[in-house]
Amino acid sequence: MARINDNYRKLKAGYLFPEIGRRVAAFQKESPDAKVIKLGIGDVTCPLVPAVVEAFRAAVDEMGTSDGFRGYGPEQGHSFLIDLIREHDYASRGVSIDADELFVSDGSKCDSGNIQEIFGTDNVVALTDPVYPVYLDTNVMAGRTGEAGDDGRYAGIVYLPATAENGFAPEPPRAHADLLYLCSPNNPTGAVATKAQLERWVSWAREHDAVILFDAAYEGYISDPSLPHSIYEVEGAREVAIEFRSYSKTAGFTGTRCAFTVVPKAVQGRAANGEAVSLNALWSRRHTTKFNGVSYPVQRAAAAVYGAEGKKQTREIIRFYMENARLIRAGLGAAGIQTYGGENAPYIWLRTPGGLSSWDFFDRLLRGAHVVGTPGSGFGPSGEGYFRLSAFNSRQNVEEAIARVARVRW
Amino acid sequence: MARINDNYRKLKAGYLFPEIGRRVAAFQKESPDAKVIKLGIGDVTCPLVPAVVEAFRAAVDEMGTSDGFRGYGPEQGHSFLIDLIREHDYASRGVSIDADELFVSDGSKCDSGNIQEIFGTDNVVALTDPVYPVYLDTNVMAGRTGEAGDDGRYAGIVYLPATAENGFAPEPPRAHADLLYLCSPNNPTGAVATKAQLERWVSWAREHDAVILFDAAYEGYISDPSLPHSIYEVEGAREVAIEFRSYSKTAGFTGTRCAFTVVPKAVQGRAANGEAVSLNALWSRRHTTKFNGVSYPVQRAAAAVYGAEGKKQTREIIRFYMENARLIRAGLGAAGIQTYGGENAPYIWLRTPGGLSSWDFFDRLLRGAHVVGTPGSGFGPSGEGYFRLSAFNSRQNVEEAIARVARVRW
Repeated sequence: MARINDNYRKLKAGYLFPEIGRRVAAFQKESPDAKVIKLGIGDVTCPLVPAVVEAFRAAVDEMGTSDGFRGYGPEQGHSFLIDLIREHDYASRGVSIDADELFVSDGSKCDSGNIQEIFGTDNVVALTDPVYPVYLDTNVMAGRTGEAGDDGRYAGIVYLPATAENGFAPEPPRAHADLLYLCSPNNPTGAVATKAQLERWVSWAREHDAVILFDAAYEGYISDPSLPHSIYEVEGAREVAIEFRSYSKTAGFTGTRCAFTVVPKAVQGRAANGEAVSLNALWSRRHTTKFNGVSYPVQRAAAAVYGAEGKKQTREIIRFYMENARLIRAGLGAAGIQTYGGENAPYIWLRTPGGLSSWDFFDRLLRGAHVVGTPGSGFGPSGEGYFRLSAFNSRQNVEEAIARVARVRW
Repeated sequence: MARINDNYRKLKAGYLFPEIGRRVAAFQKESPDAKVIKLGIGDVTCPLVPAVVEAFRAAVDEMGTSDGFRGYGPEQGHSFLIDLIREHDYASRGVSIDADELFVSDGSKCDSGNIQEIFGTDNVVALTDPVYPVYLDTNVMAGRTGEAGDDGRYAGIVYLPATAENGFAPEPPRAHADLLYLCSPNNPTGAVATKAQLERWVSWAREHDAVILFDAAYEGYISDPSLPHSIYEVEGAREVAIEFRSYSKTAGFTGTRCAFTVVPKAVQGRAANGEAVSLNALWSRRHTTKFNGVSYPVQRAAAAVYGAEGKKQTREIIRFYMENARLIRAGLGAAGIQTYGGENAPYIWLRTPGGLSSWDFFDRLLRGAHVVGTPGSGFGPSGEGYFRLSAFNSRQNVEEAIARVARVRW
């Protein structure tokens, strides 16, 4: 019989969000009248902005005409979008990215999950803890770890605890690592790396010949002008970092699907025979062999994000969400709950009151305030005792959620 | 330094279509006035049909409203589309597929490339030769092969030559294999498996505990009512086969991107400890971990293919392409060139005249008739001496191409 990939069996059965779904469903069965407000999953709630809808619709119409119809596009993305990314996301911040260093895709989840394929299975992976589960799970599936221990940690992974004690900004590890995942603005902690912090990571990577996999899916939420939006704003990062970006959170594309990845030609890995090999060539081979490009109308929709109207409209939505974040932080603070993040990121990370476990707090928040959030322990062992709330909801729901939280005795 | 996945280095450098592109560009530089007609790459040319455009546009408009906006959908696909697939693609042909056996994706290239991940690297892979390159390349990248030999064949792969001598329908191998890729209607040969042939494959797979990876991306081109559209029309296939389907060729979605994969819960693989494991559960884990669903408006566009108008309009386009195919077959036949396929598939596979190699015929066709096709040898060693033409072009271009071919002395 065909053998399965046994590494999949190392994955823990219950993924975070299905377990949340189960508990919410059970509660709603008991209390069918309770109006549950969801601040759990990091999914946007505002509609696509008018400039995006207009471009999207125009491209759909084009697809219905003989002259405008487009079949297969370049797997790497249409040049009209690539040129806009180069100009608005990079050149405007002093970073020069070549067209063939950019790969348009249907999502950062896919890209940050697939990137590990171009690396050997013998590399040591370092992750912050808590972490976006996709980085870990895809390495487990590829066989870069042993089994998970009782503490939830997989053998072979270098975990970098991110806690209140280190400001959710762990220092580079002393232990050896070849691949490091960084996410800034961070999901789930909402922490944002300063330029000085990124400089330390880049210099660590250069010293250790490691590759940094930098997830900047939330960069659109940065308002502090001193904070870097791209790791390439740090000198030398082009030789050691791959960067992931997405329209999901910056332009409400979670249901529309468009993202991109930057693989500079200067980033290298080592072949078995000792030769240095360009990771750009490997990713290009991966992307063109296993992917067939993003829907043409979706790429036109993404391009509209860079127009004057598109920029203005998407920024307004981000401002709206960030006002939600401010209200949540203030409301929780007034209720005596310590919060972190939520200033340059749409996530508020909180310390559970009274030493509650993450899941106990989940249950109390659900039963006491009919509010759903995400238990910090679901993102890794060091997330225990923390909890994530997202700023993605209507103003009315956010205000109502805060009012309910204030009424609970924690 | 981070180690690369060395398996990528086993891949042959020049992929087929870039080499075609280079030769065409060189010719056009020499002969800038030549009007080159492309019957090479298998990309559709007719616009999206009105019913699809209408549904696509309506869903885009929905995304711009507070009530209609959709964020993340289920990674497996929206139920409105899954239900239509179950009814129209399967129940209508007497096949019962459960909703959780269906996985909507952004392309069959992706799915047929990614499916191998859920299997161990120690499985033996069998492929017809010639073959769609993605099946082979993704297994090379995963390390299921040795190096390629001088004959272009990778060590460890079981090749099943498909030639005129066996009617492009190789019999199941005597050599052991665990995973078998079948494509019917076939790309590149245009051959379509009969029910009796599929029965032989299913019974072989059951006997050998092998899994069949069945690519039916071109099933929409079948007009002969005796031919099966799905491998599940064969009894017992549910226990041994995974099927790939796509809207790319049936509804002109090559630039729009939607497809689906069926993984019946009864198909199993073997874990290292001997336990039988459901492949459906493994693919579900893969799909939900590394993919984030297809764009909502695109899924609505795909759903419109099943409406009365959508069906009628897409069938008309297929009829149009198949009349192109008939004209190409007739024209080549009149020119004394032996053709195959092109009756229930949009590809015409031809034997190169005068014993020309596939690339020599490519050059003569380009220089003599200014027509571009695809050298059979690009699909595998047994494709040498054959050539693929596609029916995807305007009637005028097809007629002009045939007229020019007729004027060449082969």
